[in-house]
Amino acid sequence: MNRIDALKHAAQKQGKPTNLLIFNQPNITYFTNFPAAIALYIPEQGDCKLFASTVNYEQAKAEVKSITVEQIKRGENLTEKIAKQAPKKLGVDTLSTESWRSLAKAVGGEEKLEPINSLVRELRSVKDEEEIKLIREACRLASVGMQTAKEIIGVGLKEKEAAAEIEYAMRKAGSDGTAFDTIVASGATSAFPHGSNLERTIHECDFVVVDLGATYKFYRSDISLIFIATKTTEKQARIYEAVKMAHEKTFEAVKPKIVASEVDGVSRRLIEQAGFGEFFVHNLGHGVGLEIHEAPILSPESKDILAAGNVVTIEPGIYVPGFGGVRIEDTVLVTKKGAEILTVGPCLP
Amino acid sequence: MNRIDALKHAAQKQGKPTNLLIFNQPNITYFTNFPAAIALYIPEQGDCKLFASTVNYEQAKAEVKSITVEQIKRGENLTEKIAKQAPKKLGVDTLSTESWRSLAKAVGGEEKLEPINSLVRELRSVKDEEEIKLIREACRLASVGMQTAKEIIGVGLKEKEAAAEIEYAMRKAGSDGTAFDTIVASGATSAFPHGSNLERTIHECDFVVVDLGATYKFYRSDISLIFIATKTTEKQARIYEAVKMAHEKTFEAVKPKIVASEVDGVSRRLIEQAGFGEFFVHNLGHGVGLEIHEAPILSPESKDILAAGNVVTIEPGIYVPGFGGVRIEDTVLVTKKGAEILTVGPCLP
Repeated sequence: MNRIDALKHAAQKQGKPTNLLIFNQPNITYFTNFPAAIALYIPEQGDCKLFASTVNYEQAKAEVKSITVEQIKRGENLTEKIAKQAPKKLGVDTLSTESWRSLAKAVGGEEKLEPINSLVRELRSVKDEEEIKLIREACRLASVGMQTAKEIIGVGLKEKEAAAEIEYAMRKAGSDGTAFDTIVASGATSAFPHGSNLERTIHECDFVVVDLGATYKFYRSDISLIFIATKTTEKQARIYEAVKMAHEKTFEAVKPKIVASEVDGVSRRLIEQAGFGEFFVHNLGHGVGLEIHEAPILSPESKDILAAGNVVTIEPGIYVPGFGGVRIEDTVLVTKKGAEILTVGPCLP
Repeated sequence: MNRIDALKHAAQKQGKPTNLLIFNQPNITYFTNFPAAIALYIPEQGDCKLFASTVNYEQAKAEVKSITVEQIKRGENLTEKIAKQAPKKLGVDTLSTESWRSLAKAVGGEEKLEPINSLVRELRSVKDEEEIKLIREACRLASVGMQTAKEIIGVGLKEKEAAAEIEYAMRKAGSDGTAFDTIVASGATSAFPHGSNLERTIHECDFVVVDLGATYKFYRSDISLIFIATKTTEKQARIYEAVKMAHEKTFEAVKPKIVASEVDGVSRRLIEQAGFGEFFVHNLGHGVGLEIHEAPILSPESKDILAAGNVVTIEPGIYVPGFGGVRIEDTVLVTKKGAEILTVGPCLP
């Protein structure tokens, strides 16, 4: 079953509208493999329509073979165009408040619209073979970046210089770009999970968190490792061992049908037992695919349940303010029997 | 007047609510210089509050000096926290339909909320001195990238290799990252304004569109140039000359108080006169700042009026399907008397 049919099937099964409108860009890419259209209309019966503005119309026509592309010319109103063909009820993925209101007005009232983003979220969370192939390549490219980090990180290097070399290596290996802003955070800055002042020079005994990702044909990857410039202090070693143990044991727990909050719990309990519970300040992980953060979510509050085909990060961390932080992260594929690490980074001591 | 006071002043002047809630990330960055908070509450009287989740709380506290940072702990509900301090009416910048509804419910009805994003849009469109300094640096870095493009682009080079070298050069010169996905589009692909298959090898007589930008302390830049591998055909020369002339004349027209649609019109008329009107398939330009596309918009339909302190792109283009495309673009500062090009790229023949 192709992705569009799978969405229609899911809508029908859950009693949602079966005439669907997709506005969210990664969602459109998921269904059409084209990243620059305005909207995708999926009717219950008949052919889909991809709406593109003048600037991207020729490219859409050339690249999207299986769906009719319709041009929205300068001054034309997409909402009115859609309203003309709108049946009794429309399922819509995501829109801003303003656009939702104007669409509602055009189709004859808010009661004619129903949010269906949860359907697409579910569908996208289980990757098909083609997607896994692309994510696998994005992960290979991230591993190239991390190997470069391992080779160059040391006392005297600037964070920004490290980022330059890492990204260059990934590009040379075939990356289409970074999956998110590369993080190289050393010393006290490493205690901020999203810290990266990039101007800092690495000093002796610094923790250096490197968090990076590549993209390949719209798909992303995510990996973090911790490097320690020169020798490790006793406290650093304890923090590092706690995170490493949490990462290993949590990976072993990943399998289909396990509750995502329970996977998060494996890391959280181990880090608590090691005495650093208050310093694990973020979720264990998140889905990765066309977006760097997507379903499922691995957190204490998550209602998600893992399934074969999910691609998620496992990224326990400990962040001690003023001292430094450690994060070890891989992108992992949930398989029928357990899980497979897709980002095979360099070995650490 | 600082940026927050300027927003309150604008709200008061336009009869909008003066208790304000900012959710949009670039808007939060604009007011706080911090890129990873959940929301900023600006009350009519008293102190502002910046809400950060546990993951970014310590960093927010360390980096945001002038505003009280409040932590949203795991399981806590931001909407309820805000509702507790909500006065009679709240101005809100941007939210998804779902979040808008849940906020409305928490504060006691949709009539207690009013959209105020247009106020922030206006404010952000006129850059202050500090912003211009940062954009100037982002533009310098983009110029370094374009100089590299000039040095390396030629027959036999892969688009992706060119992107790798360009981004590396910008990073080495101090860029914090790319302002958007670098475009290197050669041959027929250059006819797609956002085309970039990146795997293609540059051939003789190819048009090669290079469109790139750098970031510096959250601010962005945008520049495009066209290179021609080896010799130019007569049709290529005509297209190139038409775009170059349009770019030059349009730049000369930029000044405060001119209507943005009229600036667009200068390029559009010249390209029509050259016989390529149907192939100028996009707007003339857009504002650049914390986002790569922001106010003002330079298009035939725009209602914006230019003012000193606007930073906009001037980017006429001609795209002939199956043949190739040309775009020449600079990031330009509107000054008191006219305009200044901030992206001084390499000279073309």
